[in-house]
Amino acid sequence: MDYEAYFAEQLRSLKDRGDYRIFAELERRAGHFPSARCHDDAGIEDITVWCSNDYLGMGQHPEVIDAMVEAIRTHGAGAGGTRNISGTNRLHVLLERELASLHGKDAALIFTSGYVANMTVLSTLAKRIPGCIVYSDAKNHNSMIEGIRHSGAQKRIFKHNDPADLERLILEDDPAAPKLVAFESVYSMDGDIAPLDEILSVCERYNALSFLDEVHAVGMYGDHGAGVAERDGVMHRVDVMQGTLGKAFGVIGGYIAASHNLVDFVRSFGNGFIFTTAMPPGVAAAARKSIQIVRNAPDMRERHQERAAALKASLSAAGLPVMPSVTHIVPVLVGDPVACRRASDLLLDRHKIYVQPINYPTVDRGTERLRLTPTPYHSDEDIAYLTQALVDIWSVLELKRAA
Amino acid sequence: MDYEAYFAEQLRSLKDRGDYRIFAELERRAGHFPSARCHDDAGIEDITVWCSNDYLGMGQHPEVIDAMVEAIRTHGAGAGGTRNISGTNRLHVLLERELASLHGKDAALIFTSGYVANMTVLSTLAKRIPGCIVYSDAKNHNSMIEGIRHSGAQKRIFKHNDPADLERLILEDDPAAPKLVAFESVYSMDGDIAPLDEILSVCERYNALSFLDEVHAVGMYGDHGAGVAERDGVMHRVDVMQGTLGKAFGVIGGYIAASHNLVDFVRSFGNGFIFTTAMPPGVAAAARKSIQIVRNAPDMRERHQERAAALKASLSAAGLPVMPSVTHIVPVLVGDPVACRRASDLLLDRHKIYVQPINYPTVDRGTERLRLTPTPYHSDEDIAYLTQALVDIWSVLELKRAA
Repeated sequence: MDYEAYFAEQLRSLKDRGDYRIFAELERRAGHFPSARCHDDAGIEDITVWCSNDYLGMGQHPEVIDAMVEAIRTHGAGAGGTRNISGTNRLHVLLERELASLHGKDAALIFTSGYVANMTVLSTLAKRIPGCIVYSDAKNHNSMIEGIRHSGAQKRIFKHNDPADLERLILEDDPAAPKLVAFESVYSMDGDIAPLDEILSVCERYNALSFLDEVHAVGMYGDHGAGVAERDGVMHRVDVMQGTLGKAFGVIGGYIAASHNLVDFVRSFGNGFIFTTAMPPGVAAAARKSIQIVRNAPDMRERHQERAAALKASLSAAGLPVMPSVTHIVPVLVGDPVACRRASDLLLDRHKIYVQPINYPTVDRGTERLRLTPTPYHSDEDIAYLTQALVDIWSVLELKRAA
Repeated sequence: MDYEAYFAEQLRSLKDRGDYRIFAELERRAGHFPSARCHDDAGIEDITVWCSNDYLGMGQHPEVIDAMVEAIRTHGAGAGGTRNISGTNRLHVLLERELASLHGKDAALIFTSGYVANMTVLSTLAKRIPGCIVYSDAKNHNSMIEGIRHSGAQKRIFKHNDPADLERLILEDDPAAPKLVAFESVYSMDGDIAPLDEILSVCERYNALSFLDEVHAVGMYGDHGAGVAERDGVMHRVDVMQGTLGKAFGVIGGYIAASHNLVDFVRSFGNGFIFTTAMPPGVAAAARKSIQIVRNAPDMRERHQERAAALKASLSAAGLPVMPSVTHIVPVLVGDPVACRRASDLLLDRHKIYVQPINYPTVDRGTERLRLTPTPYHSDEDIAYLTQALVDIWSVLELKRAA
């Protein structure tokens, strides 16, 4: 076995398929978002970011930055240990209280990332509840898929956003078997929203635990930004609310909010929680401040939705193939990995606009896309300029326009 | 199925066994380490931390804090996306270069934690190298075990730190099968060190990839703090060096350093790397600064080892059951989970000393212990005071003394 040759060959094959990823090397500039500097072989240039998951620009909010800096100056750069072994800072505890309150639950638990939260919570619940069967939406995020797979539990995949298919699968199983239904509210690559009420009704009818991933919704939906479950008035019916501190809240980290016993169970048995260094106190302080601001900023959410609507209208008017989306996520279909990469490169080279190509495995082959994420900070001029730039690229590359 | 009742019953059973964990709520104070404030029902009190994994106190180093603050003020609180989708900051790239240079490798890749690094890299390599067999040391950390398990690859457990047993197992397998040997240098709960040269010789003899976890060694061993592999002059023979930014470097995050192709392979196929938000630029800046300082601070490493030796001598002279350790980790055997928790509580109540009990599943049942981690900042007076406090607790609880 020639390991080096094997790795090289696998990488070559990625390149041949157009799926090889090149990371744009950015310098985000606090106070100037969505503007950033981009480093490449040609040097450094100013660009506009149109694909950030810092959906509300909270990562540059002066109060969030101040809270982070103050905590670092007071408590230091890191937590110094796992949560159990000297790593629990008072700021972690306060953040968990804030999250429990945001979601109207007894308790919350923070993780180093949303990925780790999904992986740890789903694998711990599905593995440790004897005989548990997991029902997973067909478009669930990789972190949920890996968590379920890691549990070793039996798994059924229900059709995307289809409560009837979920019910059909549940009816095929033992009514007495413990059940866990895992799904998302906003699906991040298509921008569609799950029928929460109907899915939760199925869960309730068959005594299944519900696990709802709201990472692309918290901060942005509901009167207080607690997510689509808050907007739809069903948050109290969700057993496990899962969210992130790294997108609309602008920092990093993941969490769940749930009953005391469920949270304590995951805290006590979740390996991905137990055996890892706690998040830095500065991250906890920044996240808490961000949540406090966003909870009380319905105007920010309105502006965000208005910007998304304005962008969709502008792109559609120009004949660009905007994919249907009922959220702030605005995907534009390219349908080929090489063309998608090329479109992204040309946007940067010709128009100083940065939009990363979204290729397999993040989306299915044949649905490669540019995924635009307008924020409250993108202006009318930004939207008009982006639209013209995309029209130019579509023409240069002879890409397919809207039907 | 009554889920709440099930969780409650499982938690009760943990409590009955003495394995239920209670997190001490601390406030680390930059500039005063190892002193901290502890919050509990009785209020707030000043304590001395004797169990931090911030082994060198770098989490409070003024230059590390300044680097972190400057990056946050310049670039914001978070990275804003995954590494691929708008989340790569120039500071990530510079940190990866620093790590590659530290370990004398082509390239490095950073992860949100050491846990995620182990989980992702081991599962990706073992799963994607067709027919790969993994050989894992019996005392490997949970993150390595979970990563190997997640790969679905065949796995053999070799006796702890036993190259002969590793060779015996390899000889039972197909010589042509790809092989991956996963082990640590410093084992964190016992403080022993692996025979790197012998284990690497076995790897070389049978064409196995070597994966070495140095999370409890980087920063602290070797002329430049690159770990035990540097100290032993074998770093160039290790295929994958894995380390953390969250212990001796005082921040958070994990990494590997390896060949260009191997790193690019994990970058391109590792789900736990691809599908997660990048570390905040401030964390990357702090970690890089910390490495730069620690690389050039052999005096800090000498002082650290001297403190560990002084602590061991003091405890031994007092007849306390110090477990054999050749490193900076100083475990003291209690041997019972309830007594271990009680000893920890009494240390805090009576002597304002914080040492978390280490119980199952972190260590085997019957080997419950207090695990002391002296740092360069613990004074002679701290050591004398701790020794007297432990003697007091050993007497109050009638714990077993050294033979």
